[in-house]
Amino acid sequence: MSFTAKHLLGIEPLRPEAITTILDLAETYVDLNRSDTKRSNALSGLTQINMFFENSTRTQASFELAGKRLGAVVMNMSMATSSVKKGETLIDTALTLNAMHPDLLVVRHPQSGAVDLLSQKVNCAVLNAGDGRHEHPTQALLDALTIRRAKGRLHRLNVAICGDIAHSRVARSNILLLGKMENRVRLIGPPTLMPEAIGEFGVEVYQDMEEGLRDVDVVMMLRLQKERMDGGFIPSEREYYHRYGLDAAKLALAKDDAIVMHPGPMNRGVEIDGEIADDINRSVIQDQVEMGVAVRMAAMELLARNLHAEPA
Amino acid sequence: MSFTAKHLLGIEPLRPEAITTILDLAETYVDLNRSDTKRSNALSGLTQINMFFENSTRTQASFELAGKRLGAVVMNMSMATSSVKKGETLIDTALTLNAMHPDLLVVRHPQSGAVDLLSQKVNCAVLNAGDGRHEHPTQALLDALTIRRAKGRLHRLNVAICGDIAHSRVARSNILLLGKMENRVRLIGPPTLMPEAIGEFGVEVYQDMEEGLRDVDVVMMLRLQKERMDGGFIPSEREYYHRYGLDAAKLALAKDDAIVMHPGPMNRGVEIDGEIADDINRSVIQDQVEMGVAVRMAAMELLARNLHAEPA
Amino acid sequence: MSFTAKHLLGIEPLRPEAITTILDLAETYVDLNRSDTKRSNALSGLTQINMFFENSTRTQASFELAGKRLGAVVMNMSMATSSVKKGETLIDTALTLNAMHPDLLVVRHPQSGAVDLLSQKVNCAVLNAGDGRHEHPTQALLDALTIRRAKGRLHRLNVAICGDIAHSRVARSNILLLGKMENRVRLIGPPTLMPEAIGEFGVEVYQDMEEGLRDVDVVMMLRLQKERMDGGFIPSEREYYHRYGLDAAKLALAKDDAIVMHPGPMNRGVEIDGEIADDINRSVIQDQVEMGVAVRMAAMELLARNLHAEPA
Repeated sequence: MSFTAKHLLGIEPLRPEAITTILDLAETYVDLNRSDTKRSNALSGLTQINMFFENSTRTQASFELAGKRLGAVVMNMSMATSSVKKGETLIDTALTLNAMHPDLLVVRHPQSGAVDLLSQKVNCAVLNAGDGRHEHPTQALLDALTIRRAKGRLHRLNVAICGDIAHSRVARSNILLLGKMENRVRLIGPPTLMPEAIGEFGVEVYQDMEEGLRDVDVVMMLRLQKERMDGGFIPSEREYYHRYGLDAAKLALAKDDAIVMHPGPMNRGVEIDGEIADDINRSVIQDQVEMGVAVRMAAMELLARNLHAEPA
Repeated sequence: MSFTAKHLLGIEPLRPEAITTILDLAETYVDLNRSDTKRSNALSGLTQINMFFENSTRTQASFELAGKRLGAVVMNMSMATSSVKKGETLIDTALTLNAMHPDLLVVRHPQSGAVDLLSQKVNCAVLNAGDGRHEHPTQALLDALTIRRAKGRLHRLNVAICGDIAHSRVARSNILLLGKMENRVRLIGPPTLMPEAIGEFGVEVYQDMEEGLRDVDVVMMLRLQKERMDGGFIPSEREYYHRYGLDAAKLALAKDDAIVMHPGPMNRGVEIDGEIADDINRSVIQDQVEMGVAVRMAAMELLARNLHAEPA
Repeated sequence: MSFTAKHLLGIEPLRPEAITTILDLAETYVDLNRSDTKRSNALSGLTQINMFFENSTRTQASFELAGKRLGAVVMNMSMATSSVKKGETLIDTALTLNAMHPDLLVVRHPQSGAVDLLSQKVNCAVLNAGDGRHEHPTQALLDALTIRRAKGRLHRLNVAICGDIAHSRVARSNILLLGKMENRVRLIGPPTLMPEAIGEFGVEVYQDMEEGLRDVDVVMMLRLQKERMDGGFIPSEREYYHRYGLDAAKLALAKDDAIVMHPGPMNRGVEIDGEIADDINRSVIQDQVEMGVAVRMAAMELLARNLHAEPA
């Protein structure tokens, strides 16, 4: 097996074979989740704790279902009402949880790097469920599985990532993963929503949506992360939709069989036209959600195996 | 088996035999819940998601226990802090959950008809846990089971439903169910708390509590739904209790063996005298809660059977 | 077996043998929790409800994990958003839950005596998870197990409890338990944070930290309970730390092998120096958390046994 890491903190440290290992195992869970008895014992006897320092109903739900369907004891910690409010430090919270002997710790945190820091203090496997603007590795993995199933491969594809790149950990993890798997990535968005250091990623940058979408295989829309824009230029929704919203005219420039993706929750009429989102011939947005549960099951099972293969 | 529906959205579409089927199965779960090992595998391998867009600790708890005791994977979605707040539509939320492959979706929503709408977008079985002023079918079913056990039958009874009829989905579902089972229903309350179109229900209407309670077998009190009264006349609690609160003097007008019901949570001293609520010879209020878990177990088991009996 | 109580409401009614019985069983759960498969069936088929009228992420998490690892159906009731807000009384809430046939009810409540009152209204076993300034028995039991493992015994030890004694149910339960097991307890703190009637406990009282810590085996620090101080003198954090915070100089007065405890969450630099809290040769703070899960597993298993040994 080529996924030997202790934690899943980001896409950055993963080798292509590790990514393939996760996706291949996830395929088996897609089948299980579609069956009448969606239940395995892969995590039986293990404990999974979900610590969300930022609300995210759908990501937490996806991890929760993943763990429960694998037979784990799953516990959600609502960190908004927790000891953190009583002045406890992140490290003390981590040490406290660690003393309860979890096997898997799923963490979302508003600060980039917080999940990495936390992983250094605990004995269990840590999964990053999104940290600041840094990484959201399971999102990139579920997007990869969705693309691989829709296009039949995960290499030599032209993928356009469109919108608010600067504030998006989803974009960052996807750029890293798609690059590792030898795809060509284009970033499309206004300069104000583009990260400063882009050169390092080996991507092409477009300000013009019509130009950038030409002949792509995959159109990946992003959510406008208004909550993460501190000051700076915020376009009006109407203006934004006019220039960067995905509508039929713009999509016509992509390949005929190009697929449309969105990590959700969607702002219909802002980032994407509602009819395109609902077009079952083009949109794979619901598939992304489905793949999310399967990818998280696979990632947690692999981490649990690595954890208990180690010498005590 | 005569309960063949895909969803449980209301009492309105149910035939009497379907109601009897649910109640009969619920009887077996009353026994299970009273035993030392209250656990079955009827929903083993299945996933139940509780989506409450309106807080209801006791109804959600009842559904949660019901599902867990049947071996389901149960997940609560706290919709108050969810993607709905980020601008996602109800339909998108439904489609997202649907992609996670739940088998049973339990939904409470403040708007009448919202649960019905949602059920049309998903592949799983949907249970209405209360929508606006429309229906609350499991409440009517648990009330029916409580009456059947207390009175030995569920037909040819005189049942008085008292109080805030206009704002009550509980009243509406009960009127429908009791009518289908051939009971005589009286509605008692001030004209301001009475729905406009009553004729369709085939019920008798009383403004006077003393008159309306005469010789009834069942006295069903309702909660004052202040949170659902938009403007309009709201009586003072003192005045309300004087005219429509159930006290010993008023109850004496009912049959000697009349039972007293309340869906909870109670406002003691407003809708009902505390001593009557606690009188184990008359009050079946705790039985209603107990029957609630059993009826929900039965309804979910029957829906799950129907779901997996269908051709894929 | 010498633990025959129906409820665990406090340390006060327990005989020393009952305490030892709980701690001995907890030892087996320390081992289970450290193993790869931390799962038993001791509570299989039983239902545990956690009712927290006061937020406590870590105590609730500890009880939740304890119950789930023992195979119980576990349900958390978030009482802050519950029927209690709709005007329902504590007793009605208790009766409602009771009708759902839980086996174990874990209750935290801001008022002293509320848990005791509630236990008189239900058929199941009730565990007090902290009531006002009264008792927090599982905290005292986990502290006792931590001490017994670190010191090799739980008698003839000198234990200093330091800080805000007046507002602390943790202190109260610990004083009772340590007294029953024949240890010498010293209370150290400013007069304003000392309870009025201390004589009854058979403890020594010190205002001076240097004097009180001399030659003790165990230093038990408390959290400053600012949220429970209604008016009265509140020292500045800086002044408090200077006089009553545990630092290296003060700790040097205790025995060379004295252990340091804190119930958490810690205010580093207020009650305790961060380096001492992290010193694995002295601090057993993480052990306390670990013992917490084990002690709660043991207490719940014993109560469940007593419950089902009773004649129906």
